[in-house]
Amino acid sequence: MIYLDNAATTKPCKAAVDAMIKAAECFGNPSSLHGLGLEAEKLINNSRETIAKILGVDKRSVYFTSGGTEANNTAVFGAAYGKMRLGSHIITTKIEHPSVIEAFRKLETEDFDVTWLTPDKDGIISLDELNDALRPDTTLVSVMHVNNETGAIQPVDKIKPLIKRKSPWALLHCDCVQSFGKISVPVKKWGADIVTISAHKIGGFKGVGAMYLSDPKIKPLLYGGEQQNEVRPGTENVGGILAFGAAAAECKIDSPHMSNMRARMIARLTETVPDILINGNGNNSGSVLNVSFLGIKAEILLHSLEARGVYVSTGSACSSHKPQPSHVLTAMGLDKKAINGAVRISFNENTTEDEVEEAAEIFAAEVSNIRRYM
Amino acid sequence: MIYLDNAATTKPCKAAVDAMIKAAECFGNPSSLHGLGLEAEKLINNSRETIAKILGVDKRSVYFTSGGTEANNTAVFGAAYGKMRLGSHIITTKIEHPSVIEAFRKLETEDFDVTWLTPDKDGIISLDELNDALRPDTTLVSVMHVNNETGAIQPVDKIKPLIKRKSPWALLHCDCVQSFGKISVPVKKWGADIVTISAHKIGGFKGVGAMYLSDPKIKPLLYGGEQQNEVRPGTENVGGILAFGAAAAECKIDSPHMSNMRARMIARLTETVPDILINGNGNNSGSVLNVSFLGIKAEILLHSLEARGVYVSTGSACSSHKPQPSHVLTAMGLDKKAINGAVRISFNENTTEDEVEEAAEIFAAEVSNIRRYM
Repeated sequence: MIYLDNAATTKPCKAAVDAMIKAAECFGNPSSLHGLGLEAEKLINNSRETIAKILGVDKRSVYFTSGGTEANNTAVFGAAYGKMRLGSHIITTKIEHPSVIEAFRKLETEDFDVTWLTPDKDGIISLDELNDALRPDTTLVSVMHVNNETGAIQPVDKIKPLIKRKSPWALLHCDCVQSFGKISVPVKKWGADIVTISAHKIGGFKGVGAMYLSDPKIKPLLYGGEQQNEVRPGTENVGGILAFGAAAAECKIDSPHMSNMRARMIARLTETVPDILINGNGNNSGSVLNVSFLGIKAEILLHSLEARGVYVSTGSACSSHKPQPSHVLTAMGLDKKAINGAVRISFNENTTEDEVEEAAEIFAAEVSNIRRYM
Repeated sequence: MIYLDNAATTKPCKAAVDAMIKAAECFGNPSSLHGLGLEAEKLINNSRETIAKILGVDKRSVYFTSGGTEANNTAVFGAAYGKMRLGSHIITTKIEHPSVIEAFRKLETEDFDVTWLTPDKDGIISLDELNDALRPDTTLVSVMHVNNETGAIQPVDKIKPLIKRKSPWALLHCDCVQSFGKISVPVKKWGADIVTISAHKIGGFKGVGAMYLSDPKIKPLLYGGEQQNEVRPGTENVGGILAFGAAAAECKIDSPHMSNMRARMIARLTETVPDILINGNGNNSGSVLNVSFLGIKAEILLHSLEARGVYVSTGSACSSHKPQPSHVLTAMGLDKKAINGAVRISFNENTTEDEVEEAAEIFAAEVSNIRRYM
């Protein structure tokens, strides 16, 4: 098996599995007053500290959630509702993850005025367009760091100065689900107010994510117990959190490995497969490669690759069952042919050169095969 | 260690740990179109089926959440907002879990009219009071099955006929976090519309729960991908869900064991410790024993028991750090002395007679010790 679908999910690493097994022994409820509870609470705090260090923030500003979707929803709804008295204009992009887009769509059906930024052909939003959109009553700007379908890096480091000049009340939210643990997420340097991340994209388990909040006074999504300062109540997913911390501690941030694997894959495909387009190649994180095999239906290629042990995806997993074409590639202005033939190949630190070489050969053979019979 | 705090959380059982380890191998994203994704989706569906069978419902009506808090919040907010056009009167009790109470409190600050039912001295709500409260514009009745602090069983089986007569639009939500897997939860017999449960109270891991919905058209809490029919989007917590199913499959429902352990504990404490009150003893599930040691501060007793290896709690874990007295015992009309001295002893299927005998002896010795020095 050559697994090249790491942007969808990753295999939990050994450290994460060990942490989960440990949590089954240290099974206290972190809210319990006795020693078993305190021990669980201490272990959670260690994970929080590991993650806070990677983000370069105070650990008291990191809150665990049930995953990227809940974190993104809390960020968007929490900021929009929390700042409602100061304005109701909010800004995002057309290439966000569904958990951001759908939250904005819901707000749009309420009393919020949404500006949707369009990316260029490389999948990167324009700072000029953003700057023009900013208003005194803007309360939230939500722009992802690395796009999940193309790997394109957004200029999140240049947004806060624009906001400060024109929109004093606006919070900056960056969805860093696809970048955290892979490339630097210098939260403080960006001046981001909310940053959201997920465990299962970096060797942790599904079902746990986190958010950094510069100010906990956004409106919570959940109400109940006093856990996590009531910013995110509910008994903590102790096992998932410990595994998240363990996986995060093993991340090789800014390692050139994935970019190298991606470059090699591009080189091989370019050499051996005619009529392809590399999408989002302008400023890329290195972890995701989006290729259009023109004239081919991506689903067919995906299944013929799978039959040979190569796992990739069409677009993102979260919308894979939807018959609609990718909203990201559509926003980038790709034509129907390029969108229909687009495949996402995504790497991790353990992807080997041999795997890339072998996968590229299989790609070439299968694409040629499919094209012959179409 | 004698662990008698199973209402706060339980140790994951071996089957749950094995399922979690399996999920680390079958690590596909259930939304992925390739075989790894389909395999994960199939495993999730097996868990869903196990849980649906225990509830006696169609598996397509079971949705996984990140735990009891999210499930209860989704039930309350989802029903209230989803039915808003039909009315804004909602009913609950003063003894619900904070994740229900705080959701109702938030709705009360909006345009909702809340009736809070009061329990009797045994911690059981009155059907007459409920019947009097029901109105044509009532849209939600939320009553828990088994109370988490006292173990008192609420008459949830008798509520739907009252609703049908007076409040045709009202949904019945039953928080079954403390009963699922221990005693029968005959959802269809009750006519419940929403039932919420949690994994970590029955030998699963923290961070996963589920809800049964008779009709998925309540307003969702989370927005994003298409997972779980968009009723609860977000990548599923595959490991937690598999472990939940594995733990649920091992539950001995309606086994007399916990009731026997509880009765034995009551007998021993009554014999050996003067000035105690058994709270919520009228119609009890058997899993929770709430005892007031009059004249003692429960926190002091908890720590002296812990020093001897016996783990219990004061009230629920979810509000353990709050300095306020238990809202449940307060609503039951207990006086300050009884509330301050109240300890929750909670059992599971693995609690042994020897543990109960030994714990009872330690209780007697420690209570006597503390009373001597007060």
